[in-house]
Amino acid sequence: TLLESPQGVKLGGERRTITILTSDLRGFTAVSEQLPPEEVVKILNFYLGYMANIISEYQGTIDEFMGDGILVLFGAPISRNDDADRAIACAIAMQLAMKEINQQIEIWGYSPLKMGIGINTGEVVVGNIGSEKRTKYGIVGSEVNLTYRIESYTKGREILISEKTLHSLRNEVQIAETREVSPKGVKKPITIYKIISIKGKYSLFLPEIEEQIIDINEEIK
Amino acid sequence: TLLESPQGVKLGGERRTITILTSDLRGFTAVSEQLPPEEVVKILNFYLGYMANIISEYQGTIDEFMGDGILVLFGAPISRNDDADRAIACAIAMQLAMKEINQQIEIWGYSPLKMGIGINTGEVVVGNIGSEKRTKYGIVGSEVNLTYRIESYTKGREILISEKTLHSLRNEVQIAETREVSPKGVKKPITIYKIISIKGKYSLFLPEIEEQIIDINEEIK
Repeated sequence: TLLESPQGVKLGGERRTITILTSDLRGFTAVSEQLPPEEVVKILNFYLGYMANIISEYQGTIDEFMGDGILVLFGAPISRNDDADRAIACAIAMQLAMKEINQQIEIWGYSPLKMGIGINTGEVVVGNIGSEKRTKYGIVGSEVNLTYRIESYTKGREILISEKTLHSLRNEVQIAETREVSPKGVKKPITIYKIISIKGKYSLFLPEIEEQIIDINEEIK
Repeated sequence: TLLESPQGVKLGGERRTITILTSDLRGFTAVSEQLPPEEVVKILNFYLGYMANIISEYQGTIDEFMGDGILVLFGAPISRNDDADRAIACAIAMQLAMKEINQQIEIWGYSPLKMGIGINTGEVVVGNIGSEKRTKYGIVGSEVNLTYRIESYTKGREILISEKTLHSLRNEVQIAETREVSPKGVKKPITIYKIISIKGKYSLFLPEIEEQIIDINEEIK
């Protein structure tokens, strides 16, 4: 974490290439408006607690919780040569964890949560940003905005990554789908990739049709 | 601030009507990519420090710095009957402060910063949101998203507010312009208002043509 990293707190501003991951719960804002407020916070904190543990396992830096959204940096404050790979592996692990999370959510009597994840790699400025009383390790640059745009194209259970992330990977990944999109603020269409697995050290696979399989099994019983 | 407010840290989730202010520096992300990273952080911290002081003067709660963006709550954790008025007064004071900020920015040799502010009022869930290791006083609800959308319609030096904020005001304000907009995620067009002054206790006025006046004076000299 940042507190353990002397580099983190000393930075006065640095330009570096990092992999950025953003996630959010698709449709949760609308759902939250129908729930008692204590339940909204209970569900969110349960979900975010799970996610924080996974992100820390993959050495991601949580920059921000914004409602149900999370902004995670791989490569800042500490740069590692597999930043993009860890981001992908983390994203798959996060999606896999939704199964356990949703078992609890359903016990509580609510509809399952659906998370979308966007990942992008690029040059940003990182540093301790803020006022005298309130400084945080922050990030500035159009690559952050682009990551949010990529995430906005996700449906539930999806991980979409940019071409730059794809080309930064050291391990093989499985692309389930390729899409051309035209995000606001970007001059020409870009290609984004739906990822469902990563090979090598992390070796994680996100089954695409898990829900249907479960349904069929239950019908057979 | 939150640390001084025992209500703030005890909340487990509460639904309440607050006024939300978001600001950002129009075009700064693009500009920042041409500057040395230390300069980006120097400019941002100078700007955010100024803004933090003004926001605290008007008893706003800074929920978040996100790059050059600021998310401020009026009415949480402590509700006051002039939340909307203080938000407007704070926004005008923030815009007025840009003159002094830009004097310094120009001494440093950079182009003046232009800030846009969006303000909205509505019901949200507030509470301590996050994981075990990292909790913050957070906010969830579609009114937050709408505030960002309203802000996205601003040009530099503008303050745009929603109809709900307008109707929550206790003091008279001056509307310079009325616009119909269709933000994403909102079913029908909404009306937003460009505000340039507030009367009563705060009595603040944002001159619209200040820059031109300065230019003329300089030409006369």
